[in-house]
Amino acid sequence: MTPPRGSLILVPNTLDFGIAGEVSDIRDVLPATVIRTAARLTHWVAENAKTTRAFLKRVDAVEPLAQSLQTLSIVELPRPQKGARAAPAADLSRLLAPALQGTDLGLISEAGLPAVADPGAALVQAAHAAAIRVVALSGPSSLLLALAASGLNGQSFAFVGYLPIEGTERGARIRELEALSRRAGQTQLMIETPYRNEALLGALLAHLQPTTRLSVSCGLTTVAAFTRTDTVQGWKAAPTALPSDVPAVFALLAA
Amino acid sequence: MTPPRGSLILVPNTLDFGIAGEVSDIRDVLPATVIRTAARLTHWVAENAKTTRAFLKRVDAVEPLAQSLQTLSIVELPRPQKGARAAPAADLSRLLAPALQGTDLGLISEAGLPAVADPGAALVQAAHAAAIRVVALSGPSSLLLALAASGLNGQSFAFVGYLPIEGTERGARIRELEALSRRAGQTQLMIETPYRNEALLGALLAHLQPTTRLSVSCGLTTVAAFTRTDTVQGWKAAPTALPSDVPAVFALLAA
Repeated sequence: MTPPRGSLILVPNTLDFGIAGEVSDIRDVLPATVIRTAARLTHWVAENAKTTRAFLKRVDAVEPLAQSLQTLSIVELPRPQKGARAAPAADLSRLLAPALQGTDLGLISEAGLPAVADPGAALVQAAHAAAIRVVALSGPSSLLLALAASGLNGQSFAFVGYLPIEGTERGARIRELEALSRRAGQTQLMIETPYRNEALLGALLAHLQPTTRLSVSCGLTTVAAFTRTDTVQGWKAAPTALPSDVPAVFALLAA
Repeated sequence: MTPPRGSLILVPNTLDFGIAGEVSDIRDVLPATVIRTAARLTHWVAENAKTTRAFLKRVDAVEPLAQSLQTLSIVELPRPQKGARAAPAADLSRLLAPALQGTDLGLISEAGLPAVADPGAALVQAAHAAAIRVVALSGPSSLLLALAASGLNGQSFAFVGYLPIEGTERGARIRELEALSRRAGQTQLMIETPYRNEALLGALLAHLQPTTRLSVSCGLTTVAAFTRTDTVQGWKAAPTALPSDVPAVFALLAA
């Protein structure tokens, strides 16, 4: 007889990864279910084992862990080979072994929801293929908070990840996204590595039409959080400097 | 001298709106900041005043409201005229009056994050135009939870709202979304009124290619939550009946 399977539980992390300053109480941004679940899980698959241990220390401070941190199993997601879209399937089945043997397994990334703008989707896919129940717990998502705070169209939107870095390609992609936004009335969301925030803002202002609305959200859920939405014209007339050490979400909607 | 302005605070609601059965403890799904903020706000703009009062009763049970429910100001968002995309700007400025006079103003919808797959974006836009600070608080989003739990591409995705109801148009739209998904490798997310869940599933299975992956999530964050992801072929070989009284999120990714 097959033993009952454990679930794959997607555990959200806070959004203050890598942001200097006071570490907030995780209860401020994570619901009680998340903290309770994180405290009881003994097996984890993580984007990064070190930041997962840091997260679990914060959990332990408000809800004691079921087992000491040292005895927990924390396995890192395999990084896909350069150029490959996903890790080999064999690796993923190995990671799911605890769930196949009846133990709930947590999946966590460095910030926000796992498998959204982050690695992990291939593992979730492998879980579905193995008939392992997948449970996503509610937590902060910088993308959706930025979208809500932008005032841009929240009834139709797309997240397109990172833009190309090379100037000509980047300009072409920006114009392509603006055309798509105009045609479908769809808000286009993108992210950038923090030290390139200013460069992306500059490229957007250089290539977008004056009437297109552009929203930038920085450091959401932290004390430094801000969202500015204005036309490209308005941004140019009154520039805002962006921090180079805080993640930002950029959103555009063509007029 | 102008008085300091209040902020427009986007307050997430739970996802169990209209779902029969036990009402869970809101602390299970909402972080402490949300509950604390909701308890202190005296002025609200709401998708629906009645469900806002029900939400505030649940808040009051775990964190006493600063003022009695009867004395709170709760104003409903104007519904756009049939055919119009938005409410008149004058109405929106009127709603923002408390913030202009220095009082924080809450915006809340019937479920999930306001202004995402829900009304409210026009008010947020008016707030930006009036230099009112906009703060989005973290809460559950059925769209992002469904995306995370689907195992489909979370690095590129789009939410397209509702599909046309009429059969021919609906079929054409489904094929268009599948082509878009194939071309851009982009997960396409959509929602439906619960009593039409089965009809939308039937249309998706009728029009999508056998190898396209389809994910359906129902009742996320409630006890009845489930997510199934399979190829169209797999869904056809082993059908799952969908509930007609629980909101579902549908996601597709072409092979």
